[in-house]
Amino acid sequence: MKNPVTVTVTGAAGQISYSLLFRIASGELLGADQPIILKLLEIPPAMEALGGVVMELNDLASPLIQEIVSTSDPDVAFKDVEYALLVGSRPRGPGMERKDLIEANAQIFSVQGKSINDNGNRNVKVLVVGNPANTNCLIAQRNAPDLDPRQFTAMTRLDHNRAVSQLAEKTGKHVSEVSGVMIWGNHSATQYPDIRHATVDGKNATELVDQDWIENSFIPKVQKRGAEIIKARGSSSAASAANAAIEHMKDWVSGSDERRVSMAIYSDGSYGIEKGLFYSYPCICAAGEWSIEQNLAVDSFAQQKMADTEKELVEERDAVKHLLP
Amino acid sequence: MKNPVTVTVTGAAGQISYSLLFRIASGELLGADQPIILKLLEIPPAMEALGGVVMELNDLASPLIQEIVSTSDPDVAFKDVEYALLVGSRPRGPGMERKDLIEANAQIFSVQGKSINDNGNRNVKVLVVGNPANTNCLIAQRNAPDLDPRQFTAMTRLDHNRAVSQLAEKTGKHVSEVSGVMIWGNHSATQYPDIRHATVDGKNATELVDQDWIENSFIPKVQKRGAEIIKARGSSSAASAANAAIEHMKDWVSGSDERRVSMAIYSDGSYGIEKGLFYSYPCICAAGEWSIEQNLAVDSFAQQKMADTEKELVEERDAVKHLLP
Repeated sequence: MKNPVTVTVTGAAGQISYSLLFRIASGELLGADQPIILKLLEIPPAMEALGGVVMELNDLASPLIQEIVSTSDPDVAFKDVEYALLVGSRPRGPGMERKDLIEANAQIFSVQGKSINDNGNRNVKVLVVGNPANTNCLIAQRNAPDLDPRQFTAMTRLDHNRAVSQLAEKTGKHVSEVSGVMIWGNHSATQYPDIRHATVDGKNATELVDQDWIENSFIPKVQKRGAEIIKARGSSSAASAANAAIEHMKDWVSGSDERRVSMAIYSDGSYGIEKGLFYSYPCICAAGEWSIEQNLAVDSFAQQKMADTEKELVEERDAVKHLLP
Repeated sequence: MKNPVTVTVTGAAGQISYSLLFRIASGELLGADQPIILKLLEIPPAMEALGGVVMELNDLASPLIQEIVSTSDPDVAFKDVEYALLVGSRPRGPGMERKDLIEANAQIFSVQGKSINDNGNRNVKVLVVGNPANTNCLIAQRNAPDLDPRQFTAMTRLDHNRAVSQLAEKTGKHVSEVSGVMIWGNHSATQYPDIRHATVDGKNATELVDQDWIENSFIPKVQKRGAEIIKARGSSSAASAANAAIEHMKDWVSGSDERRVSMAIYSDGSYGIEKGLFYSYPCICAAGEWSIEQNLAVDSFAQQKMADTEKELVEERDAVKHLLP
């Protein structure tokens, strides 16, 4: 058996974590031979519920779980963390404007970023799932000056998988025959799900579907899929989000086998996007690192969509500027 | 890739299934090389919610899922089923006596047993999770006269894992050092969690803990663990139940590697238990079959506990005698 590694999950008593923790415990994140110290962070009012989750985790009798620490103190939760999954965030309350929401979360993620900076393993990998994910990630990263900005990422993998699923359904092919889909920008309704460089069963996707379907069905459907699921289920898409978080982290750690995946990462200015924003790009993962796929042709339609979602990210950043060191 | 197999899950829009389906889709039940046709059964009022679950399953973009069928018709759901996980059951409503509950479920499970008999693969393996699990399993099996009673099982694996977890905690050892725990009888508060033949780190468990702890802490704690979790979480133990269902089925299919596991199975009269009841025994699984471990010494304390839980199963059976063909 390998030495245990520390995995920290925030919002650990919430619905996404309830779909995530038990899969981590069974080895789906880091493999069936990797022992784990699981550190769970929650806010004080949720500590009793978290106690119930810990009982259930104990009741797995999982050979991989070496220790479970549950706490409401970020410095305890992030001590020696190697894989941080920042799932918890403040949901929008009654009468709350988007700006209030961004600011409330900025407070949380600045504390967490600072704590990861001060307590985490120097090679920590951070995935932000809690919304607004890209800007939460920006805030955490800016509060962690001793870490490489490349160690921080936000999740657009669920959007990516939704795009794959929609394209497979439309073309009548199995999802395993779809590749090369990508998500640009913000994990929000301005995201740009892009199939210009995708293939289905080896054929160019754009030759199989028309532009009207892309603009008026595909893009809005992927952007609004979350709302569609809430309407049907009566609760939000927790299990598919947890699945995407596992895939994002697993590919980052173990490589994506040359496959294109979507990750919101620190922009280096690629594709003309403002440097320092957390923007979703097409990425390839290998040897524990992601890299942006370069030189993909961008037409004027895409250019506009990519700029629209960039604009939203700039606005979100500017709304919390006073909290950015 | 292998040929796809049909896995059917009932109560598919419920909480346990929400923790189960996404793990099945990721290959945890039958392996990462086994394509699956997933058939999901629900009652008509839950079909909209099930639609949301299906959207999320599609949004996994899982290479293993070949097709998803969602239906409220048992004959559609059980067509060609090779692995049937009967998770759904009628919960106790206001003013309902235990007898009413058993009878309401007996109706459901007689229909399902008959449908599996008429539509399922001849080698189908059935796991009943929905409570009262042992008696529901009995009813399903008695309505499936063309199948071998050994193809029907009910779940006591969660109780088993809870017993392992409690013994590890008490002795200060890791769960992986505990082996040989077993659950006798009914998946209910009369079950007998037994550590007389268990070891912890190679030592006899009974030498490490005293009889008072066994009788007054360990046994009642395992029996009532479900209620403890409901109290803390505000909802029942769905994720650990789903995990136990996966382990039960996986061991049955792929073997338990000589490890003792607990399964409620068709009694052949072993240990003096009435033949034909579905009773949890210590089992070893190999080559797709379970077998009861024989000749374990039974003292008078155990004898009494084993008889108490048998008596409850006889009473449950007698309450639904008019529905047993």
